[in-house]
Amino acid sequence: MSQTDSLIARAAEQAASDTTACAIADAAHAAATSATASDIVCAANIAENPYKRDFPLLANHPDLAFLDSAATAQRPKTVLDAQRRFYEEMNANALRGLYRLSVEATEAIEVARHRVAKFIGAPDWHDIVLTRNASESLNIVAKAFAPTVLEPGDEVCITIMEHHSNLIPWQQACRDAGAKLVYLYPDEDGIIQPEEMDKKIGPKTKILSVVHVSNVLGVENPVVELGRRVHEQGGYFVVDGAQSTPHIPVNVEEIGADFFALSAHKIFGPFGMGVLWGKDELLRAMPPFLTGGEMIDSVTEQDATWAPVPEKFEAGTQDAAGIYATAAAIAYVESVGLDVIGAREKALVKYCMEEMAQLPYIDIIGSPRPEDHHGVISFNVRGIHPHDVASILDMDQVAIRAGHHCAQPLLTWLGVENLACCRASLAFYNDKGDVDKLIAGLKNVWSTFNG
Amino acid sequence: MSQTDSLIARAAEQAASDTTACAIADAAHAAATSATASDIVCAANIAENPYKRDFPLLANHPDLAFLDSAATAQRPKTVLDAQRRFYEEMNANALRGLYRLSVEATEAIEVARHRVAKFIGAPDWHDIVLTRNASESLNIVAKAFAPTVLEPGDEVCITIMEHHSNLIPWQQACRDAGAKLVYLYPDEDGIIQPEEMDKKIGPKTKILSVVHVSNVLGVENPVVELGRRVHEQGGYFVVDGAQSTPHIPVNVEEIGADFFALSAHKIFGPFGMGVLWGKDELLRAMPPFLTGGEMIDSVTEQDATWAPVPEKFEAGTQDAAGIYATAAAIAYVESVGLDVIGAREKALVKYCMEEMAQLPYIDIIGSPRPEDHHGVISFNVRGIHPHDVASILDMDQVAIRAGHHCAQPLLTWLGVENLACCRASLAFYNDKGDVDKLIAGLKNVWSTFNG
Repeated sequence: MSQTDSLIARAAEQAASDTTACAIADAAHAAATSATASDIVCAANIAENPYKRDFPLLANHPDLAFLDSAATAQRPKTVLDAQRRFYEEMNANALRGLYRLSVEATEAIEVARHRVAKFIGAPDWHDIVLTRNASESLNIVAKAFAPTVLEPGDEVCITIMEHHSNLIPWQQACRDAGAKLVYLYPDEDGIIQPEEMDKKIGPKTKILSVVHVSNVLGVENPVVELGRRVHEQGGYFVVDGAQSTPHIPVNVEEIGADFFALSAHKIFGPFGMGVLWGKDELLRAMPPFLTGGEMIDSVTEQDATWAPVPEKFEAGTQDAAGIYATAAAIAYVESVGLDVIGAREKALVKYCMEEMAQLPYIDIIGSPRPEDHHGVISFNVRGIHPHDVASILDMDQVAIRAGHHCAQPLLTWLGVENLACCRASLAFYNDKGDVDKLIAGLKNVWSTFNG
Repeated sequence: MSQTDSLIARAAEQAASDTTACAIADAAHAAATSATASDIVCAANIAENPYKRDFPLLANHPDLAFLDSAATAQRPKTVLDAQRRFYEEMNANALRGLYRLSVEATEAIEVARHRVAKFIGAPDWHDIVLTRNASESLNIVAKAFAPTVLEPGDEVCITIMEHHSNLIPWQQACRDAGAKLVYLYPDEDGIIQPEEMDKKIGPKTKILSVVHVSNVLGVENPVVELGRRVHEQGGYFVVDGAQSTPHIPVNVEEIGADFFALSAHKIFGPFGMGVLWGKDELLRAMPPFLTGGEMIDSVTEQDATWAPVPEKFEAGTQDAAGIYATAAAIAYVESVGLDVIGAREKALVKYCMEEMAQLPYIDIIGSPRPEDHHGVISFNVRGIHPHDVASILDMDQVAIRAGHHCAQPLLTWLGVENLACCRASLAFYNDKGDVDKLIAGLKNVWSTFNG
């Protein structure tokens, strides 16, 4: 058995132990998968919704309708246990030590890379670069990779629905290279049509970088089609998966991505941990971004050579506890099943949008079709500032987000008043009771201002 | 009471609650401070060393002599409790939300900034930039600040004892700017003498960046004198405090630093959390480094303006749990007291070096004086590869580090064989028993190879 195989075997054992604590949830999943969509959302309180019991914050706040998971998800007990277990049982600085604890820390990181690689369909776990969050991942591509391929007159193409983290780095990369930043605009339902792709993706397009699922519209972009088109033109394809990985199965090879970014804290993992996956030959060829300890091969007074991928991109001490907990988060997601997660979320979104449709003062932003909203429903209450809506809902223990959602160009393009909207974002741990509280809260908001 | 005052008041309350769990330690501190140095190190096992009880990993491994705290420290229970408490009671994405949890998360970050500012004597908590680790902090200075002041022909001055994280970024900054990287060399005891400063710090020196305490030699550099000299020449002064902050009181104003970097995981805080402090006017004037969410004021399709300091430098979702736990780590350090920490470490280093002096096959690297070693003793066992030394010690449950310690140019300059040495690094939670195990282990190493 090779060292790598032995690590994978250990990973499997670890997964089994990580998921023991999910037993309650597991029992419920079987029921959930055979239930109809309406059955699924019927669990109206924590006693009937087994998933909330897995999440200490939700269990500790049974009256809270937490509808802000697109900003950051809650964490299951198994993730918090894993993080703590690392510090209490394995804590050492990885990669640098020859003693047992340090070797274990190093192995924990490698096992976690395996798990992340499998989760996103990456063919080689060495290409899983550990970052701080998806923002840093995208900055690495824009600041370290882009300058190696962009020339004056080239175009970088993004969509108008990008999060600022996949937008400002490209503004800067274009400015530095003398390239042009070109936008893809969707139709009124938030769908990017082939005619728009014909117009914007052409021989000058050196990089196409798109958000997989919009954090405002909730729509899934046609990444396979987009990737095919930019590759036909000889360009590179970057995908921001921060909002897709919590909701839908991802396979970077099927997508045809050259780079893919995600944030652990949105998939029930810890803060401070992100991933950049890149095609092996691209990661090898590009220069490092941050420099310092661990990312070198050798250093002289005036020069340095780099470590292999992925360490080349990982300067300084890694958050070994964080990546260990990220592996536990993925184990948890897999134990619930992305099929169950998707089914619950779809049913909840459908129920929520149907209920909202009964309120004539609610304007949905984006597609009227629930199936176009992956866990995200943005809206405004006619004539009432979104900040007021969120504040009043908070008094009813309904947590939603209001503001520009780090997507100012999208809100400008949509013509949304005050450059702000409300966003209710759902995860599989939500239930009908949460939606009912939101709807009751919205009625209360309306009557407060128009009573 | 202003909002800020109210936050500070809350911070004080929080500190009181954070330190409740340190009661055992507190009782012991009083005894420790009145004890003599030899009394202090006499506590030879966990029953007699109250500090180890504060650290779950050490309490769980009573036979382990953990002598690798310079790589990463162990974490007290209060820090792990704080991290978990955040996820279980307060978890939300800070800065972006109007609901209670998110407001609490935002406040937790601000309170933590206050505490960090006070810990390093920073006059304004707004100038505490949260990063991933000291490496990222130093990269920000070299990649975002340096290009705004370096011109062709300028010099950047560092010491030969820099960690790679304060060395490679300057190699790159100099290459990009056409500047020259100049080295300060210490005398044979590791002390940088005034004559060397005369030679190297001059009118061409635009930036002087030095490690406060060397991670190999353990020596504290004369930062006040160095800062005065570079300021006289009109240059800027950057201090890498990754290895000083765990051991000695730091005051960035007294040091005269323009920028100061630290890593939380070395001061008993969580992984994945670092700090960059900078003078307010410098942070305001310099451009951001990473771009994305939270660090903007407004964004259009082709342009963006930046948020105020510190958010300008904090793209993406912050590790709110990590900074909350960092505040708990500082509260813990303050509850023990840096005077007690310093006294214990000095006594332990003295005892360890005296014992090592009895072993004629041990060569100490750096100063022969214990007072020049802040928690760090690097050495080699004559004729035996450091990796072998560390591996054999590991079998005796003694964890030290062997290698280049991310300081290859220093080891090259010192002429250390194999570019590698052993390093035992001590923290205040170590005791005489740990040192005795190290010494017995070293005797075993010698007899294994020469028996």
